[in-house]
Amino acid sequence: MCVVFFLNLAADCNAVLKALQPIFQEQGMTETVHNWEDHGYLATYIKKNGSFANLRIHPHGLVLVDLQSYNDHMKGREETDQKLKKKYSQRFCNPSPSSPPPPNRLPTILRGGVIDRYWPTADGRLVEYDIDEVVYDEDSPYQNIKILHSKQFGNILILSGDVNLAESDLAYTRAIMGSGKEDYTGKEVLILGGGDGASNIDQMVIDGCKKYMRKTCGDVLDNLKGECYQVLIEDCIPVLKRYAKEGRMFDYVINDLTAVPISTSPEEDSTWEFLRLILDLSMKVLKQDGKYFTQGNCINLTDALTLYEEQLSRLYCPVEFSKETVCVPSYMELWVFYTIWKKQMEV
Amino acid sequence: MCVVFFLNLAADCNAVLKALQPIFQEQGMTETVHNWEDHGYLATYIKKNGSFANLRIHPHGLVLVDLQSYNDHMKGREETDQKLKKKYSQRFCNPSPSSPPPPNRLPTILRGGVIDRYWPTADGRLVEYDIDEVVYDEDSPYQNIKILHSKQFGNILILSGDVNLAESDLAYTRAIMGSGKEDYTGKEVLILGGGDGASNIDQMVIDGCKKYMRKTCGDVLDNLKGECYQVLIEDCIPVLKRYAKEGRMFDYVINDLTAVPISTSPEEDSTWEFLRLILDLSMKVLKQDGKYFTQGNCINLTDALTLYEEQLSRLYCPVEFSKETVCVPSYMELWVFYTIWKKQMEV
Repeated sequence: MCVVFFLNLAADCNAVLKALQPIFQEQGMTETVHNWEDHGYLATYIKKNGSFANLRIHPHGLVLVDLQSYNDHMKGREETDQKLKKKYSQRFCNPSPSSPPPPNRLPTILRGGVIDRYWPTADGRLVEYDIDEVVYDEDSPYQNIKILHSKQFGNILILSGDVNLAESDLAYTRAIMGSGKEDYTGKEVLILGGGDGASNIDQMVIDGCKKYMRKTCGDVLDNLKGECYQVLIEDCIPVLKRYAKEGRMFDYVINDLTAVPISTSPEEDSTWEFLRLILDLSMKVLKQDGKYFTQGNCINLTDALTLYEEQLSRLYCPVEFSKETVCVPSYMELWVFYTIWKKQMEV
Repeated sequence: MCVVFFLNLAADCNAVLKALQPIFQEQGMTETVHNWEDHGYLATYIKKNGSFANLRIHPHGLVLVDLQSYNDHMKGREETDQKLKKKYSQRFCNPSPSSPPPPNRLPTILRGGVIDRYWPTADGRLVEYDIDEVVYDEDSPYQNIKILHSKQFGNILILSGDVNLAESDLAYTRAIMGSGKEDYTGKEVLILGGGDGASNIDQMVIDGCKKYMRKTCGDVLDNLKGECYQVLIEDCIPVLKRYAKEGRMFDYVINDLTAVPISTSPEEDSTWEFLRLILDLSMKVLKQDGKYFTQGNCINLTDALTLYEEQLSRLYCPVEFSKETVCVPSYMELWVFYTIWKKQMEV
């Protein structure tokens, strides 16, 4: 549990310490104080049950309180929290125009439990999910595969720590299929990736998804071959090369393989080369008037998006593209999707 | 900065401490160790520049490391972090089937700064926003009004700590207007609340929004009266009573006043009574075939939603309702919207 105060005036560190000390001492906590002289105080309070608190008082008025306790010691933590609130308002909140703002209390952070609720966004922000169950958790030869249940988003597929897709995320599927503007009747479609409902090199992702992500994939993964589709569980590069050699052409190529690499050093990163190889091979099997759909990245990772767009200008054939920003519910950040097509010759 | 390890086997606390100690000591940090005997160790490391670290070793194998530093001491923090990673993999990651999982590192939490990036969800989860600017921050006689700029969501209106609406949230406006299924041509519409673009008791919300939320409200707040609309800045209860007395009836009433109270003790909470009063008065000015739209609450607050629905059965006239769950981008949680209409008499 974290609490932050900010006193408007430069604080008399010793006075702040004296005012807050009793809250911890009343709970039978043992105090150790470190005085930096020029950087304020750190007081550490230790309780017999293994809980402890840090009270950090900065000379310019910032006061930080952190309480850490294990499992079933919530009661003492709440008690301390209540007392802190009361003491703070008594001691520091005189109703004057210069009175300090109310203390800022962050929700409790739960760490080291069976269920991990923190899955940072692609742009590195801390977000807490309402996870209440670990549905599936296995290591495949390629990655760690987790399916966690969120109260609001349903089951979420997490590959090596990256939130991939939740049952709530129809918006993702809609966007990567062209946002409802395409008529797929009678068309030839090649989907790369999409282990949550299509071809993927990792059989274990398919095994997990067909059991626990049925709201997303329906019964399409129960049989790898249907009347109008076939699922190949293999590396897509040789398959694309074979199709290109055979001259097999598609109306649509949907690349749901991987997010754009976050790295911003394309020359040092073979992932960009891999990405361009896939793009080049995809263009080879795409009809002249066909469309290529793919997800890009979090809208905040502008450098990565720019680099991706630079790759597009380096393909074997000239292409044009458009992009769309979509809110995918379980991502907690806006996501960019691309539509790419072959530049038509001017006549 | 927080790092969590979990060692598969019950840990020899002393061995873990001995292994990690050098990381802190190499940086010239002063160590204080507390040994609980039955609850493991707490080691506190203090640096001359005011930074400090907590190393908490639990006897069942959980190891928690927290580093806290002020502003410009990031370098030391990153160094410690790198060394921790290296040490951890050297010391604890023997490639056996029982080897512990990789350490879990949460993004750095920034506290006490001018810009607050943490605005918990209605269901109490910790989420970090990509806030980069405080655009407006004033106290009105009714509430604290903040408009903060988010890189991805644009300007966000935050009233007394509650995220109200961002420039990205067309989905909210769409939902509270009936999700595009209504034809408003020539209709009489009464909007309650909606200070971000309509009538509100708090002039200061309007002042802030008409300046900084123009993507949301356009020019509608520049003049309080237009050809086909009028904005009243007053308490809506007497206005509703006057309309009811005059017999003025509306095709649509859109209530955008306040979220459903989070409290689950309706008998003790006058907010529920207030809410029912508004509902009753709204029904009085709603045509027999009219529709009432309102936002409900976060989908996870099922108790509050149930209580709201119970209020609907206690109105002066029988009503029916439907609900819809909508993803409002800046909320980072799914939100429930209601459509309410008067029950038609059976013939």
